[in-house]
Amino acid sequence: MPTFVQILDFIGTFAFAISGIRLASAKRFDWFGAYVVGFVTAIGGGTIRDVLLDVTPGWMTNPIYLICTGLALLWVICFSRSLIRLNNTFFIFDTIGLALFTVVGVGKSLALGYPFWVAIIMGGMTGAAGGVIRDVFINEIPLIFRKEIYAMACIAGGVVYWLCDAIHLESYACQMITGITVFLSRILAVKYHICLPTLKGGENAANAD
Amino acid sequence: MPTFVQILDFIGTFAFAISGIRLASAKRFDWFGAYVVGFVTAIGGGTIRDVLLDVTPGWMTNPIYLICTGLALLWVICFSRSLIRLNNTFFIFDTIGLALFTVVGVGKSLALGYPFWVAIIMGGMTGAAGGVIRDVFINEIPLIFRKEIYAMACIAGGVVYWLCDAIHLESYACQMITGITVFLSRILAVKYHICLPTLKGGENAANAD
Amino acid sequence: MPTFVQILDFIGTFAFAISGIRLASAKRFDWFGAYVVGFVTAIGGGTIRDVLLDVTPGWMTNPIYLICTGLALLWVICFSRSLIRLNNTFFIFDTIGLALFTVVGVGKSLALGYPFWVAIIMGGMTGAAGGVIRDVFINEIPLIFRKEIYAMACIAGGVVYWLCDAIHLESYACQMITGITVFLSRILAVKYHICLPTLKGGENAANAD
Repeated sequence: MPTFVQILDFIGTFAFAISGIRLASAKRFDWFGAYVVGFVTAIGGGTIRDVLLDVTPGWMTNPIYLICTGLALLWVICFSRSLIRLNNTFFIFDTIGLALFTVVGVGKSLALGYPFWVAIIMGGMTGAAGGVIRDVFINEIPLIFRKEIYAMACIAGGVVYWLCDAIHLESYACQMITGITVFLSRILAVKYHICLPTLKGGENAANAD
Repeated sequence: MPTFVQILDFIGTFAFAISGIRLASAKRFDWFGAYVVGFVTAIGGGTIRDVLLDVTPGWMTNPIYLICTGLALLWVICFSRSLIRLNNTFFIFDTIGLALFTVVGVGKSLALGYPFWVAIIMGGMTGAAGGVIRDVFINEIPLIFRKEIYAMACIAGGVVYWLCDAIHLESYACQMITGITVFLSRILAVKYHICLPTLKGGENAANAD
Repeated sequence: MPTFVQILDFIGTFAFAISGIRLASAKRFDWFGAYVVGFVTAIGGGTIRDVLLDVTPGWMTNPIYLICTGLALLWVICFSRSLIRLNNTFFIFDTIGLALFTVVGVGKSLALGYPFWVAIIMGGMTGAAGGVIRDVFINEIPLIFRKEIYAMACIAGGVVYWLCDAIHLESYACQMITGITVFLSRILAVKYHICLPTLKGGENAANAD
């Protein structure tokens, strides 16, 4: 069982690192900068989760995350021309990463004895916080706050995990169903342009505080 | 006693969440983004404090902070029109939140056995760090670094707590006087346009490093 | 031995605080904002390292870092005119700080029993993460991701530490050689305009995720 989760974790790491490296490259970062942004995109969410759960972050016990990010950087350096045509492929990869990270985040929190509402937040954080740090580093407003059903897909997955657990499904089944929920939520949201309403606070709000 | 501090904590959470949600709405964040920014504004300072003090952040042991932020979001969605007219009310709320968070931050650090100079910093961090994360998320230079006596009011409150403790006042009295100090410092600073001097480093400084 | 490391730590703190305060002053921060940015530049990297290593951050056990930053602020306030002419001096100071922080970061991680590849990352983080937080606070893309051999000098130093340790040099000698490596790497990189290649991801990458 842990091996299965680990394999998924590594695939997700690769996909997220690619996402960070590509956005860094669009901002003319050098190789080191791109590597760091890729690495932080991949492990940032899990690291914040582990700091909050007071356990040692996974990447400090296993160098595979560093290697994964290195391979992602190599990939982008070698195939930068063809990457643009692969946008759809990367979208799928990124969504797989999102699903896997959510499952890992919820599962780890539950294993540590936290209640479900904490685990759901930790799932969403594992999936989405890396992308927020990435966007802060490239000096953009985090994408997930404005445009897409992204973190909401993680939250939906977390709730489904909770329901599956409530009807006493095996943890393996819970994780499969959760992952599929996250994956499909995001794919369908993008395909049918489903998004959350925007707040209308007015221009004066900015002066309020 | 803990119940009294908890109640104050919840009022402060609501006020801070409103502040985050309003600024997010001015940037056209969706509901999810606004919720996250509101939540982080409310619990960000306390979370960094708790991570540094190596205790479990308060919001992970009690879902009231999530609920508070949800109510704040609902409030902004329902009453967005009238919010602009309420700027002064929110200024008062926000200042109450600042005072309460400072008291909670100083008190918690002292209870954990840290010296007073650490507790004063933790008080300021509890009050002001959430707003810094908020401003980073909406891609603005943090307001408190440039414009207002904000965090300085927390620091002043922390020093007053220290003085009250030094003359052996009851902890209840220390907390009341600290809260009032923070509240009045900020109100008076805004009313009389008191602000700290600005540094004049010159344009070449930006090339220095 | 600890006293030697501590003295170096304080010199590095002063240099890094100056760097933060000068950039803050270029953005018209007030004294408080400049102090906070200087402080975070100085202790930010070490604090993230200590949170990840699960030990209490150094500045919470010793007020010298706060005092150092206060002296740095006083210096900038008093000598702001002459600071521009001192750019080269500050470049040297900053590079000394970088070298010292790397040595402290690697040494502390090894002392806590972490493997070398973690220690190297922690060395780089101690040296460079404070500057990243500084740049996020002043709302700029972190400089180290784009322009200079900066964090790479820390990484080089960490690798040299590892090699020195592998041939069983005294820890004092390891630290001296590591520090000199970091210092010379950065000086030479700036003098001869050595920099890492930039990624060419194309404009469409920004739309990918």
